[in-house]
Amino acid sequence: MAKQQTAISPTRSEDYPEWYQQVIKAADLAEASPVRGCMVIKPWGYALWENIQRVLDGMFKATGHENAYFPLFIPKSFLEKEAEHVEGFAKECAVVTHHRLEAGPEGGLVPAAPLEEPLVVRPTSETIIGAMYARWVQSWRDLPILINQWANVVRWEMRTRMFLRTTEFLWQEGHTCHATAEEAMEETRRMLDVYADFAENYMAMPVIKGEKTAGERFPGAVTTLSIEALMQDRKALQAGTSHFLGQNFAKAQEIKFQDQEGKEAFAWTTSWGVSTRLVGGLLMTHSDDDGLVLPPRLAPVHVVILPIYRNDDEKRVVLEFAERVKREVAAQQYDDRPVQVKIDDRDLRGGEKAWQHIKRGVPIRLEIGPRDVQGDAVFVGRRDRAPKEKAGVGRSEFVATVSQTLAEMQQGLFDRALAFRKEHTRTIDDLNEFKAFFTPKNAEEPEIHGGIALCHFHDGPELKAALDELKVTVRCIPTDAPEEPGKCIVTGQPSTKRAAFAKAY
Amino acid sequence: MAKQQTAISPTRSEDYPEWYQQVIKAADLAEASPVRGCMVIKPWGYALWENIQRVLDGMFKATGHENAYFPLFIPKSFLEKEAEHVEGFAKECAVVTHHRLEAGPEGGLVPAAPLEEPLVVRPTSETIIGAMYARWVQSWRDLPILINQWANVVRWEMRTRMFLRTTEFLWQEGHTCHATAEEAMEETRRMLDVYADFAENYMAMPVIKGEKTAGERFPGAVTTLSIEALMQDRKALQAGTSHFLGQNFAKAQEIKFQDQEGKEAFAWTTSWGVSTRLVGGLLMTHSDDDGLVLPPRLAPVHVVILPIYRNDDEKRVVLEFAERVKREVAAQQYDDRPVQVKIDDRDLRGGEKAWQHIKRGVPIRLEIGPRDVQGDAVFVGRRDRAPKEKAGVGRSEFVATVSQTLAEMQQGLFDRALAFRKEHTRTIDDLNEFKAFFTPKNAEEPEIHGGIALCHFHDGPELKAALDELKVTVRCIPTDAPEEPGKCIVTGQPSTKRAAFAKAY
Repeated sequence: MAKQQTAISPTRSEDYPEWYQQVIKAADLAEASPVRGCMVIKPWGYALWENIQRVLDGMFKATGHENAYFPLFIPKSFLEKEAEHVEGFAKECAVVTHHRLEAGPEGGLVPAAPLEEPLVVRPTSETIIGAMYARWVQSWRDLPILINQWANVVRWEMRTRMFLRTTEFLWQEGHTCHATAEEAMEETRRMLDVYADFAENYMAMPVIKGEKTAGERFPGAVTTLSIEALMQDRKALQAGTSHFLGQNFAKAQEIKFQDQEGKEAFAWTTSWGVSTRLVGGLLMTHSDDDGLVLPPRLAPVHVVILPIYRNDDEKRVVLEFAERVKREVAAQQYDDRPVQVKIDDRDLRGGEKAWQHIKRGVPIRLEIGPRDVQGDAVFVGRRDRAPKEKAGVGRSEFVATVSQTLAEMQQGLFDRALAFRKEHTRTIDDLNEFKAFFTPKNAEEPEIHGGIALCHFHDGPELKAALDELKVTVRCIPTDAPEEPGKCIVTGQPSTKRAAFAKAY
Repeated sequence: MAKQQTAISPTRSEDYPEWYQQVIKAADLAEASPVRGCMVIKPWGYALWENIQRVLDGMFKATGHENAYFPLFIPKSFLEKEAEHVEGFAKECAVVTHHRLEAGPEGGLVPAAPLEEPLVVRPTSETIIGAMYARWVQSWRDLPILINQWANVVRWEMRTRMFLRTTEFLWQEGHTCHATAEEAMEETRRMLDVYADFAENYMAMPVIKGEKTAGERFPGAVTTLSIEALMQDRKALQAGTSHFLGQNFAKAQEIKFQDQEGKEAFAWTTSWGVSTRLVGGLLMTHSDDDGLVLPPRLAPVHVVILPIYRNDDEKRVVLEFAERVKREVAAQQYDDRPVQVKIDDRDLRGGEKAWQHIKRGVPIRLEIGPRDVQGDAVFVGRRDRAPKEKAGVGRSEFVATVSQTLAEMQQGLFDRALAFRKEHTRTIDDLNEFKAFFTPKNAEEPEIHGGIALCHFHDGPELKAALDELKVTVRCIPTDAPEEPGKCIVTGQPSTKRAAFAKAY
């Protein structure tokens, strides 16, 4: 059989990492910039991020959080206050050392006016926000503080990849401060639940909720919880984290308060964040060899109308009908908002235009030509079906069912992704089977193999060495993992729970 | 008569600059941070900024713009490409020179891993965005490009003041690219109109639209348009600017395209921005000696309900009634959204609580006690009236008229601000009168004098020297200034239009 033509080349099975880059390009989501490791998020990618922001922001506010904004710069001495924290971030700090450019001796401008203390461009904001909380908290009455910030952060990564790991990225970081450990831990779990809810119900991306092992914790955290998702190359993606920071940062920064008995106590803090990395996760969960596939709840456009005509007479009739369909579709509600519908009337070949929207992941395409107008019908293509599998549907039927169709597509994407994860999740108790699971069987598909292995484990250097060799990591100890006696898959030492192992981004 | 007690001390007439700081503090809008010149925008201030963003973003999208995101860092060589531009910003650039911190010889961490080329933290993004546009534009078919970015920027200012001039600030910057000068100039004007519409109809802040003189232009611009507002100390605030950049940046960055005749041409670009400075402008336009006054269309909360009770029985009855009022008020629409209403049930003295909301500028306060419940009424305080001028109103009447009341308050604030500006705008043709107008008459009120002087002018060094001495600037040549022959107020040289002169922020 001849190889099927696809819009994206290479395909996933041919070269998965390159396929990823090509989907970003074909969908016009983002582009590398001239600044090392920084990307430009283009309008279609940014519109997707705006939808992510809008939904998450609503969830944060519904759980009692307010937004605020803290400085981009962190004085070096602040970062140094929490030892593990600075250890974790020192290697990837962009450092501002001067506040002026002046003409240099050899022409051109050179940095001038050195700062007394260097400033780090925030890689995360625990230390600067903690310094403010220390001022704001005096009494138990001032607690809890529940604040979130939408911001850009910078981590000087050596190897970057668009959306997944960039030098600068956009994110939100929640920072909360509580009177008791229990309350702070409850907040840590609550926000992980918010992330899981968002990932599964909006991104249609099934996730495993769990706790990180000691070596994988956020620098300075007592407990790090994360959501982990399986991508189509069967690697895991850490999609969001929620940290219980104990009193580590409160002690480093003197966030103290008088408790109800009048005694002085250190506060308990948390932090939690998701970033533009989610766009990469969404892409790798659903997209196919024809480009991006968008879950309808986050799609900037739900329905694109493509008018087709050969002359001015046809144009008039077709556009009039298209406008009517647009009005009727826009009057439908999906997910508590009007269905987002656009007419694409650009002067482009019909095929080229349709393929642009396929590559960009628009859920529903409506082709409307003179014959459709005559038949009071529209010709419907769905992004979750093959590009040529299109069907004529009566106008009023389409309008009446469009919201339901979008809801079905959303559920369909989730079901497919969940089935994929189940297919590639294995409970393993034998080390050889474990090794085989994470070793490519086929030299032509070196990038796609493995999945999630649920195995007993005993954290320590021996386990780490064996995993490093296989390039596998413990993703998390799933929250829903039952207590069950067992032996570590590598060391044979006793274990009480299975962890989720995977290769990862 | 005894001095009237006010919530803010000092009052405007006692010490205007200090009054400004105290209103920010009393309204809990923002706070100085430990990072030089950077502020923390606190939840109430950020909620106001979110409303500003939401409305402006809708206006930008309604005029065909899309959002995108470009890198925080600008390579030094990019900034150097446009000579006037770099000249304008070199003195205030935060410069990143290293990408790591390492243990230093004397303990502590020191900057390590120097960058090959220093990176400037964006003071504005013409150069980095222009570099991308140069890639994206090949043909006239690729034009126009209409993009906006919401971002943080950094300008290392020597003297800072919260919201008005901070080292880091939040803003939006529109950057557009066109095939013709006419189209670019039209865009420049359109966005100034959007800003003026927003300022007057949402902020209730009357503005003068006009063109900057040569010396006041954005570095690299051919024409800079601005909106200027008069603050209560009779100084002008430049509240938004829109720049026609001609082909300056296109030539510096090689933004070229094939026109419809197949000839190669440089594109024409514009940029336009408003920032968190608007919050300072809003504050200084409406606030009084009791604190912030918010125009209802931008207020995060329209109505706050303050339940008053002395025991648990009263509490139950009062809260039940308060919840009912809340539901009914929230069911009303104001400005295409539900009226934003909150119950403040914190355990605080009633007076203290009410004053907090007065100082924060909440438009309407409802006190509800047992007697109000009995009378099916609410006790209404309006922020545009004296704190003690409260009145009982029947519940259903209040609910039925709340939207209209908010609309009236919005209009009232605008009318008052416009009357204030008219009162302090003078057409002046005599140099002595001009000097007297800008000289404090009363040594006890050195901060409050002057206003806007509409005078003929002839730009040049002689005019500038005279104005510098008076600390007065030409704010703009108003768009609606009629052509009229005259003589420059300072030099006597011929002039055809009056400009607006004022002391300024």
